[in-house]
Amino acid sequence: MKALRVDDRHLSLEDVPVPVSDSEALVRVTCSGICNTDIEIIRGYADFKGTIGHEFVGVVEASPGGLQLSGKRVVGEINAGCGACFLCRSGDPRHCPDRTVLGIVARDGAHAEYLTLPVSNLVEVPENVSNRQAVFAEPLAAALAIGEQVSIDEDTSVGVIGDGKLGLLCAMTLGLRSSNVLLIGRHRRKLAIAEDANIEVELADAAGLRHRKFDVMIEASGSASGFEAALYLVRPKGKVVLKSTFHGRSSWPASKIVVDEISIIGSRCGRLGTAVALLSENKFDFTRLIDDEFPLTEGLKGFARAGEKGSLKVLLYPEGSAV
Amino acid sequence: MKALRVDDRHLSLEDVPVPVSDSEALVRVTCSGICNTDIEIIRGYADFKGTIGHEFVGVVEASPGGLQLSGKRVVGEINAGCGACFLCRSGDPRHCPDRTVLGIVARDGAHAEYLTLPVSNLVEVPENVSNRQAVFAEPLAAALAIGEQVSIDEDTSVGVIGDGKLGLLCAMTLGLRSSNVLLIGRHRRKLAIAEDANIEVELADAAGLRHRKFDVMIEASGSASGFEAALYLVRPKGKVVLKSTFHGRSSWPASKIVVDEISIIGSRCGRLGTAVALLSENKFDFTRLIDDEFPLTEGLKGFARAGEKGSLKVLLYPEGSAV
Repeated sequence: MKALRVDDRHLSLEDVPVPVSDSEALVRVTCSGICNTDIEIIRGYADFKGTIGHEFVGVVEASPGGLQLSGKRVVGEINAGCGACFLCRSGDPRHCPDRTVLGIVARDGAHAEYLTLPVSNLVEVPENVSNRQAVFAEPLAAALAIGEQVSIDEDTSVGVIGDGKLGLLCAMTLGLRSSNVLLIGRHRRKLAIAEDANIEVELADAAGLRHRKFDVMIEASGSASGFEAALYLVRPKGKVVLKSTFHGRSSWPASKIVVDEISIIGSRCGRLGTAVALLSENKFDFTRLIDDEFPLTEGLKGFARAGEKGSLKVLLYPEGSAV
Repeated sequence: MKALRVDDRHLSLEDVPVPVSDSEALVRVTCSGICNTDIEIIRGYADFKGTIGHEFVGVVEASPGGLQLSGKRVVGEINAGCGACFLCRSGDPRHCPDRTVLGIVARDGAHAEYLTLPVSNLVEVPENVSNRQAVFAEPLAAALAIGEQVSIDEDTSVGVIGDGKLGLLCAMTLGLRSSNVLLIGRHRRKLAIAEDANIEVELADAAGLRHRKFDVMIEASGSASGFEAALYLVRPKGKVVLKSTFHGRSSWPASKIVVDEISIIGSRCGRLGTAVALLSENKFDFTRLIDDEFPLTEGLKGFARAGEKGSLKVLLYPEGSAV
């Protein structure tokens, strides 16, 4: 089968055998999404070698001991735990110290014709959710994870920094909890997507921002300057949620965090089931975040497109897959 | 009166008028303590100009509309709010945006013969608490603030990094909440003080540390390497409390915070009343943290002593004050 593989900061389209597993489900990938983390991985983040990609929708071709899933359309939780440690036994393998992560840590990923995952990682996609919406399940779950970690209600003022894919998903979903959400970005085209979902938006250099303070700031720009802005915009005793993984180190003013007693909260993966439940309501048209689509065989072009400054979601389709 | 004043990174002993206030209490300082923040201020932190010092015990000489305090021995909350904003009206001026802070922000401080503070900032010291214990009220309150911000119970594993004054106070007071506290430091002499208070201790380079993970880490070393160590030692989804204010910027691995979903919590001032209540129990002998004592007139020598590598608390006494 075809697969997009990374080795020593080099991405290539390769022919590899279809994966075989006695213990995991075999999923034929219908469509995969390119995430900024994929691009960071090619730059060296996570030191990963193998097939990349962790956002997908697919169809189960074989599932050991789980026949009821065969032929079903699914999305997948990307962390696969050891199954034996305390975290795994309590139902949350996302922090299992021995976990593998689809296309990120020691597990071949989704930019391929087939992948395998434990049956327990798979979530069936309801019929009324299109593939082009379902492929957003993983980043949508990541956005929804904020609500698991920080208390946000109708009156909580929330600022989101970054109008990229993740920032848009965060702002749109936080708008379900609070009527006081502001998305701050640099691209009118992207801000318009949130605006159409009734989210207040502001350009990053807007003068009016200087006088505002927020209970909660979400850093989704993946840049040091975004974090700096979040620290500036959060109120004393407020919370800054870090959503973006980026390679390398950041320089922060530590004393500001201490003096203003700010909390900084790292936030990564969410629950796929929660995301699919939201998708099934079809409240949002996430397909507006799709900037381009390529066959998997033109995956290198797809990555070049996804790496262009300002581009939003790029999707890849294995041969024979239908949208 | 004599006062230790800082101007443009230069500390000097000066003769200045006794402060006069219609609205605040006049306190004759019995004894003041040199804090690491004082040393940071001389290096440029907070851009402060005036009399430094914020740890003290003194006697009220005059108190407008609060006669019942006159002649009483007191310690003082260092933040003085505007009295009008929401935070001040809700009883917590510690984050009032217009606050002054004793010897730190726009308010002359405690390394002097006299100071003034609002009557509401003063907390009477019970008779059974000596001056040499009472002078620890402010840093003790800062240590106790951790319990206001993070849930710590009997089984919570807590690591404290830094065996300086603040680290020792944090470890000793956290030992009142959890039976699972470890103090990590570089000085056997200082670690012994915590050990005598039944706190487990470990040298920072101990091999055994490599295999331990903590629910909560307290960074009290005021160094970038201490923060790195705290990030390394905290478990996934654990909390790192930043206790030290230090001047300048730090470089942190942001992706570690996101991937492990760590929370970083800035922590500054606590409640003086809580600290005095603990002092009145005389559970701890904080005078073991006193390394040296000088008359205020030899304050420059006192600061030199406090700035020596590895030194603990140095106290200053205005002329005529008795221990």
